[in-house]
Formats: sequence, structure tokens, C-alpha cells
Amino acid sequence: MTITSSAVRSRTDLCSAIENELSGLIGKRASAATAYGADFARLWALAGKNVLGGKFVRPLLLMEAYDALRQRHHEHGPAETRRRETAISIAAAIELLHYAFLLHDDVIDGDLVRRGHPNLIGSLLAEASETARRDGTDGTRAGSDLHWAQTGGILMGDMLLAATHQSFARADLPHELRLRLLDLLEHTINETVAGEQLDVGLGDGVIAPDLRTILVMCGYKTATYTFELPLRAAAALAGADFAVENALATAGRHLGLAFQLQDDLLSTFGDPRRHGKDPFSDLREGKETAIIAHARTTNAWPDIESFFGKPELSVDDGAHVRRHLSACGAEAFVQGLIEEQMQAFNSQLTTTIPAGVRNVLLDLAGQLEGRQS
Amino acid sequence: MTITSSAVRSRTDLCSAIENELSGLIGKRASAATAYGADFARLWALAGKNVLGGKFVRPLLLMEAYDALRQRHHEHGPAETRRRETAISIAAAIELLHYAFLLHDDVIDGDLVRRGHPNLIGSLLAEASETARRDGTDGTRAGSDLHWAQTGGILMGDMLLAATHQSFARADLPHELRLRLLDLLEHTINETVAGEQLDVGLGDGVIAPDLRTILVMCGYKTATYTFELPLRAAAALAGADFAVENALATAGRHLGLAFQLQDDLLSTFGDPRRHGKDPFSDLREGKETAIIAHARTTNAWPDIESFFGKPELSVDDGAHVRRHLSACGAEAFVQGLIEEQMQAFNSQLTTTIPAGVRNVLLDLAGQLEGRQS
Repeated sequence: MTITSSAVRSRTDLCSAIENELSGLIGKRASAATAYGADFARLWALAGKNVLGGKFVRPLLLMEAYDALRQRHHEHGPAETRRRETAISIAAAIELLHYAFLLHDDVIDGDLVRRGHPNLIGSLLAEASETARRDGTDGTRAGSDLHWAQTGGILMGDMLLAATHQSFARADLPHELRLRLLDLLEHTINETVAGEQLDVGLGDGVIAPDLRTILVMCGYKTATYTFELPLRAAAALAGADFAVENALATAGRHLGLAFQLQDDLLSTFGDPRRHGKDPFSDLREGKETAIIAHARTTNAWPDIESFFGKPELSVDDGAHVRRHLSACGAEAFVQGLIEEQMQAFNSQLTTTIPAGVRNVLLDLAGQLEGRQS
Repeated sequence: MTITSSAVRSRTDLCSAIENELSGLIGKRASAATAYGADFARLWALAGKNVLGGKFVRPLLLMEAYDALRQRHHEHGPAETRRRETAISIAAAIELLHYAFLLHDDVIDGDLVRRGHPNLIGSLLAEASETARRDGTDGTRAGSDLHWAQTGGILMGDMLLAATHQSFARADLPHELRLRLLDLLEHTINETVAGEQLDVGLGDGVIAPDLRTILVMCGYKTATYTFELPLRAAAALAGADFAVENALATAGRHLGLAFQLQDDLLSTFGDPRRHGKDPFSDLREGKETAIIAHARTTNAWPDIESFFGKPELSVDDGAHVRRHLSACGAEAFVQGLIEEQMQAFNSQLTTTIPAGVRNVLLDLAGQLEGRQS
């Protein structure tokens, strides 16, 4: 079908444009980094490899929303071309922000692997250990190698956070509009940090795991920068009415929360052959999800609690807990929450959102259904 | 003397102006933070207390250099007033950058104390432990409390790094000049991060501790953001010639390195009653300084090495190592390095640097002599 193949081609073009922009942003810095020695340059090389290997969910959402919002304008002059180039630079900067958050999140969680591959910290650790093995100093400094690798994660996150701000600050835009985007960036960082702090506080037992806190945390930690920021930025760059921007942001937040809740359901009840993750890792880690928050309010909790947060949880025990979580109604409860979010999302679509960008959102929402990984 | 008291008054006025600006920058964010709950607001409250309790070394250097460079212009119109206000906002932003670096440095080094008081991480840890004691959950989660506190350090550092960029990006300046300051900020962050990485690599035994690496590390990690950035920013904001900016930056780097080397000498050979620090902490930590790098090249090293990096070093052993470090010529060698840096600093002063700003630098250099803490 012509429509499908043109849509596919258009997404491929967008991916290339975003990839080119990211290559430029990172390549420039990776070249400059060589002046500071091999270890510093290595940070940029690894970050470049990881960023460019991403799926560009956030920049694609920004650009598809932007293109849809500009569709009606039929302008093709140099000003339109320049503005679109700026939109691509902001879209790429949001991908750098995402990666900065991931890196600091990995440091905080002590993670060395992401989606089955070593993350930047895991790569630095493996390389330091390999050097130590070659030099015969391994064994004496395993702790130091991890410290070195996690330091690389903190520092690279800082540089990517700086690079994000540099792109926003240098955007080729009227000063007022640039300030508007800088406001958005500041708001996003505050909410994401607040969400990360809640998440860690829940995990460390410093913050009480009630359902409201968990839902607020999910919204702050993921929905804000993954959905609200790209949609608001697209609207601001496209010169859309503030009413449209707000409707997009609200729709995006609902969708973001639905995705996050579905992630939790998939991790606990999904087919590990599909999602490729340890099916009991959330239970072993004692992750405070909406599923767990509901289970705590049921009679099943005393039985579940004795297995929750136990790193040594066996496969049989895991399956037992999973049956309990389903039988006590926690699975259905969270499915209900997702439906609520999707209803709120759909009701936003019937408001001020123009048809083109509505289709972008519906396309994204379509990925939610039948999602298994 | 009239000159002294007017100089003192002028510095007091500058301190107030910087303090007001910082109060505004932090206060605005601290108020907004309350919307995200008590734990998030607590980060801003603690950061505000610590930042406002600082000595403002970097913003004072920037403003004193700026005022000296503008002295000859005798302009007092609204444009001059606006530019000076912008200079104060950039000076305050550099103090936020300093604090962001300190926080991430404290996370990386596992430090809970700075200058005899709990740092932000130490305060968060103490508060979480106090809450746990009250709730009767202490003992079961000591590790979690530290994790929670260090996460606060990472996240607050991120927000301060963001706030620094926001101030630079919003500076009320012609676009070209704002871009120039953004370039400076990017360059500074790269060098400081490279310096921090070298420092950690030396400590973790990943990078070989030769003298050249240690001197490069000191320059990158401290001199760049403490001396070069404020001086270059002052010159750019004051509209000074690029030759003047470069001479100031070079002078600043030499002075910065001299201060850093003197810090190392004071830590090892200084009077602990004056500097208030553990006199053997550098030796216990196995800190790779220029003193140690020189000692490694002497016959005294085998005797020193057995005590170096031993956390359990006794006071007697510490005094023994200190005598060795002095006798083997390491103390005199580093004194010689400081003299070299001061000669290079002085030779810059005779070049293109205007008299007023030369006095600012000489005043700073004067603090080096007779310094005991």
C-alpha cells in the first residue's frame, strides 16, 4: 500500500536525519576529546556507540508531531527549512538528555547491562579488568575497577547533560522561543529528578510505597521527558496554540503512564521468551510497582511478602508469587489503571488536537496493544 | 588607610551582590521544589545552605577582574549597569558550577564531610538514619540510607549543572557574546571532567602516576574552572581584547597550579592546628601528588612505599614518612615547582594585562604567601 510505504519511508528519512544530527553533536565532541587522552576519548566513543544504537523514540515523536503540526502551512521557504533543522537539533538534544538520565540511573542502580548488552559502565569495567589481567594486577583491585567505571558513568552523564543544554541554548530561534524551550527543559529535568528520587526512596525504604506515590513517580520519572517534553517542544517549535500544546502534553502524560504500567505488567506476567528479561527480577529486587502496591492491600500480601525483595527467589517460588499476584486481583487492577489512562488519553484526542498529530499519537498508542516486550 | 578600607568595603559590597544573586537563583528553585514533596525540597534547602555559606572565591575573582577592566571606561549609563548585572549573574552561575562539581566529587570519593561539616550527602545520611531510629527500622537498612544520600548528591549535582547552563543561556547579552560564554562553559566542563577522570584513574591505579600526568590533572581539575573561567568570562563580558583575555587565562592557570601544589604541601607538611585537617589523610588515602611522584624517583621510595595508601597508618609512621619525604628532596622539589609557576605567572603580568586587573591578580597571589590553611 502506498500510504504505508510512504509512512515507512518518511520514518526512515527522519531516523537518518536524527542520526546525522546526533553523529555531528557527538562526533565533534569525540574529536575534541582526543586532546585529553585515551581514557577521556573512550568515554565519548562508548557514549556515541550507545546513543547511535538507540531507537530514537523521543526524537521521532518530536519530529513526527512537528511535521504533522506544520503540514497545513504548506510553507517551503528557507525559514521553514531552517526551523525544521532547529527542530531536529532539539530532537537530538532530547535523545542526549535521555542517555544522560540512563547513565546516572545505571550508576544509582549499580547496573552494568542494558537490554542484554554491557552499558557504558559495564564496558569500562570489562576494559579495565582486561588491562589488569594483561598487566597481572587483577585480583588486587576489582573494587577499584568498578569505582573507575561508575565514575565514568557519572562524568559522561554530566557531559551529556551539558551537551543537551548547549543545543537548547544555541538553538537558531527567536530569543523568546529559545527561552520557552529552556523553561521546558528546566521543568523536565526537575520532574525527572523528582521521579528518580522517589523511585530510589521507594527502593531504599525511605519513602512509603503507597499507590499514589508510585503513580506520581512513574509520571515524573518517565512520562515527562519521554512524552510531554517532545510533544510540548514540537508544539512550541511549530508555533501551535498553547491550548494545543497543553492537550498534547496531557495526552502524552496519560500515554506515558499507560506504557510504564504496562512495562510493570510485562516484567511480572509477560513471556520472558518475548521480552528477554529475567521474569522475576522485579520481585527479586523488591521493586515497588503499582502491582505490589495493590497486592499490599489484599489478604494475599502476607504470603507474597515473605518472597518479595529476596535476591535468592527460586523459579518455583517466583511462579508461586506470580499466581498469587494474579489471583489477588493485582494484575487486573493494574490492567484497569492502564484502561483508565487510555480513556483519558482518548478523551484528549477529541479536543483541540489537529488530525495529523492525532494520528501520530494513535500510532504510538497502537504500539501499546499487543506489546510483548 | 583609606585605600584599604575602600577595598574592603568594595569586596563586602561584591559579596552581598553575589549572595543576593545566588539567593535569588536558589530561592526561586527551592520554592518551586516544594511542589514535588519534602524530600525533593530538602535537596534544594541543603544546597542553598551550603552554597550560601561558601567564600565565593570564583565569583569574586570574576567581578573584581570585571570591575578593574571596566574602570577606564568611566561609563555609568543603563547599558553599563545592565552589563554589570549580567556579569554578577554569570559569576553566581560559576559558583553553582563549583558546587555541582564538589557534589559529584564527594559522591565519587565517598566523602560525607567538607571543611569539618557534613556535606549535603552527610546531612541526608544523618537525617535518614535519624528517621530510621525514630521508626525503629535502623540497623536493617544502613546501606540503603547511604545509597539514598549519595543518590541525592548525584541528582542535586545534576540540577546545579542544569541551573548553571540556564544562567549562561539566559544571559542578557548580544547573541554572539552569549555564544562565546557558552563556548567557555563547555570548554571548562570538558577540562574539569578530564581532570576528575585522571584524578580517579590515578587513585584507582588505572592510570600510571607520573609527574607530568599529575600536573596536567591539577591544571584541568582545579585551575581551569577556578581561575581560567572567571578571568576569561570577566574579559569577555568587559569587552577586553582577546590578547588580554589570553594573558589573564595563562596567568590564572599558573596561579591555580601553584595553589594546588601548595595545597598538597600543606596537607603533608603543614601544621594541622592551622589547616584543621588530618595531617596524614593524603598518605593514608594513597593520594598521587607531585610530592609522591618525585619521591618515587628517589632511593627513599622503597621505605615510603610500605606505608603509602595504608588506612591504618599510625601517627608515628606518618611522621616517619613525612621526614623521609622531606629528606629525599620531594618537599623542596614541589616548592621549586611552585616557584616556577609563580615566575611564569609574574612574567604574564608584565605583558598586556592592564594595571587594575594586575592588582587583582597580585592580591590573589599574595594569599599564596604565608598561607597555612
